[in-house]
Amino acid sequence: MTTEAFDAVDIIRTKRDKGTLSAAQIDWTIDAYTRGAIAEEQMAALNMAILLNGMDRAEIFRWTAAMIASGERMDFSALRTPDGRVKATVDKHSTGGVGDKITLPLAPLVAVFGVAVPQLSGRGLGHTGGTLDKLEAIPGWRAGLSNAEMMSQLQDVGAVVCAAGSGLAPADRKLYALRDVTGTVESIPLIASSIMSKKIAEGTGALVLDVKVGSGAFMKDQASARELAETMVALGTDAGVRTVALLTDMQTPLGLTAGNAIEVEESVEVLAGGGPADVVELTVRLAEEMLEAAGIHGADPAAALRDGRAMDVWNRMVAAQGGDPHAKLPVARETDTVYAQADGVLVELDAHAVGVAAWRLGAGRARKEHAVQAGAGVRLHAKPGDTVRRGQPLLTLLTDTPERFGRAREALERAVVIAPEGDRPSRRLILDRIG
Amino acid sequence: MTTEAFDAVDIIRTKRDKGTLSAAQIDWTIDAYTRGAIAEEQMAALNMAILLNGMDRAEIFRWTAAMIASGERMDFSALRTPDGRVKATVDKHSTGGVGDKITLPLAPLVAVFGVAVPQLSGRGLGHTGGTLDKLEAIPGWRAGLSNAEMMSQLQDVGAVVCAAGSGLAPADRKLYALRDVTGTVESIPLIASSIMSKKIAEGTGALVLDVKVGSGAFMKDQASARELAETMVALGTDAGVRTVALLTDMQTPLGLTAGNAIEVEESVEVLAGGGPADVVELTVRLAEEMLEAAGIHGADPAAALRDGRAMDVWNRMVAAQGGDPHAKLPVARETDTVYAQADGVLVELDAHAVGVAAWRLGAGRARKEHAVQAGAGVRLHAKPGDTVRRGQPLLTLLTDTPERFGRAREALERAVVIAPEGDRPSRRLILDRIG
Repeated sequence: MTTEAFDAVDIIRTKRDKGTLSAAQIDWTIDAYTRGAIAEEQMAALNMAILLNGMDRAEIFRWTAAMIASGERMDFSALRTPDGRVKATVDKHSTGGVGDKITLPLAPLVAVFGVAVPQLSGRGLGHTGGTLDKLEAIPGWRAGLSNAEMMSQLQDVGAVVCAAGSGLAPADRKLYALRDVTGTVESIPLIASSIMSKKIAEGTGALVLDVKVGSGAFMKDQASARELAETMVALGTDAGVRTVALLTDMQTPLGLTAGNAIEVEESVEVLAGGGPADVVELTVRLAEEMLEAAGIHGADPAAALRDGRAMDVWNRMVAAQGGDPHAKLPVARETDTVYAQADGVLVELDAHAVGVAAWRLGAGRARKEHAVQAGAGVRLHAKPGDTVRRGQPLLTLLTDTPERFGRAREALERAVVIAPEGDRPSRRLILDRIG
Repeated sequence: MTTEAFDAVDIIRTKRDKGTLSAAQIDWTIDAYTRGAIAEEQMAALNMAILLNGMDRAEIFRWTAAMIASGERMDFSALRTPDGRVKATVDKHSTGGVGDKITLPLAPLVAVFGVAVPQLSGRGLGHTGGTLDKLEAIPGWRAGLSNAEMMSQLQDVGAVVCAAGSGLAPADRKLYALRDVTGTVESIPLIASSIMSKKIAEGTGALVLDVKVGSGAFMKDQASARELAETMVALGTDAGVRTVALLTDMQTPLGLTAGNAIEVEESVEVLAGGGPADVVELTVRLAEEMLEAAGIHGADPAAALRDGRAMDVWNRMVAAQGGDPHAKLPVARETDTVYAQADGVLVELDAHAVGVAAWRLGAGRARKEHAVQAGAGVRLHAKPGDTVRRGQPLLTLLTDTPERFGRAREALERAVVIAPEGDRPSRRLILDRIG
């Protein structure tokens, strides 16, 4: 006879038949899965039932709490401001987009104002790049820090971007790997609980979510992006984390670069007071939201970009993790140019297509164990709304391995739409705010 | 890079998003799963998506064909009648019920008329007993025959009840074990393809399906039972097997016994021209359907029960598999009696409750590797429609291990309903015929 409190098959059947899982059933499910008493195939069936039949708010809250309870929780309460008060902590999470390098200028920018910014980040899988992959283009920079190193950097520099330790929400780690191979990623309850369990376990006091919408994002339409954002804001708020979310456009890449080293280069331009308008706009707006959420009112982050304060923190942040902020970045050995086929207005430059092209050029990986090329990626020479002339360069493809150009160009086949003058698209970057 | 024709995650996503799987996708799925290129957790997610989103007829046909193609096919065309023609073959499959011993008298009864009856059967799991478990109550009888032994017995005796070889539809064998632990058993496309892949691979020329409906059956309502029956009849017909289905009542047990040795005993009573009216009725009706499907018209199976011809075949069939048809059957060491609590008409004696009680007494197993008790089970002393008196015995519980009585009685707590005279229920055994 079994000594388990529940039977996995009963729990699968409950969700399969559109029932509601009790708190005790959810606690047991996450615990039993973490210690191997629920088999991978059973969790796969349960995940598919959750994806297709949903979970209500109470179930999602409990599922998230159980994943947090599966591991350690971090504690930043030892961090102190110069006058001896507990330092406010604030984090940002993006659901992932093409050319989304915002974390790089944002973390040092927010730290300028005396708050701690612990950015536990991941590597990229698929067509959206990973923040750690980008920073690893900087010679010497390392992503892996001990908890003590991280705390010391947060105290001294104020900002840290590093890999999340394996002790944080191990149930989520195991579950994410399973969802990836069983077609059960695209579930709002499972996405929201996965993101928020890690962020709550991390122990941040405030959190700003950047939920992307559009072809290059996970969420293709605003309604599902809003549902995801509302679920995550409710989860954070319930756990005592001040949480707000922005819905932002991901129909076209952010900025003029999608890759690793080239995104670092663009981030440094922003930190130097320049850079593409959309990257600057989103960086400043997210900084304002983060500072508000951290209780810092009336700050002027745009000024901190212009006057070099953000760049100072960036330089110290990179150096603290072994990187040389002034080193020459890797450059791809081979280039290939995509030219405009007509005169007119560029009305579409599809984010997903550019992301897949950058990935195929070597900027991303198909499997966790693969390496990425630091120099690979795509440079954009025009953005939607710009006037273009037939024959002008639209995109530069970058790679060390030119045999990749063919498949990258295939990905871009229907990515570019040029219309006659007059059809200029209106495009908003920030679509909504929740929380 | 992979050399596989398809990606398992794409196939899972297609069904998850209510799409239709192509013939090539289905062929690859079953083949890849059989050789381990689709992982158990991937198949579990796909099964749950199939259970919740369904499959259309074309998908079910192809899924069944792919499972048949995963293994060997048997061929009975070497069997000959005394005048040298190819012997007709006909099989019966029941979806499983409580007290369903019909195969035991039915196989020899049909063989009386010169057709071959190859009954490849299974062991019981859960509250419905297994035909092989019942026959194994006969001292010396063995379920495992080589293909050559089976052919020789079909030629000489005409009827064989034995274990299905492992070469038949191995994909189904693997899939069934997975469905059992992942809450994905209750899917009409998966049930129909599982049953019919084995029956078609077995090579029978005709097939009669007994689809049970009611508390003791897999299908609780007539609509879903009819859908299952129609799907299976279409699958059989499409594969060139003359297939008909009866929908029969399983709200109360068949006959007056649920167990192993006691069901053999009741079957022998039927073969001797006696036995409970419902067992006789269903045996004769299924025999008529099987003989019609095998092309034997105007046979009188009821006469073959009365005049001992069916008993002769039974005795030879048991002896051919090492059993002694005249041996004393095992008897349970301990008994416990459930009495009527009121005067009136017995209007309900729940099949599922009696099945669970018999199972808990030791007649069934909770896991494949467990043994069953030959003598355990439940004897019924009244059936719905009978007048009962307060204090008269209703059920006798039988086991070798009296510590099981408590949980068996728990299963029976709400199983018996006695109403005042006048409420006599009308009950039909055979509810519908399809095909």
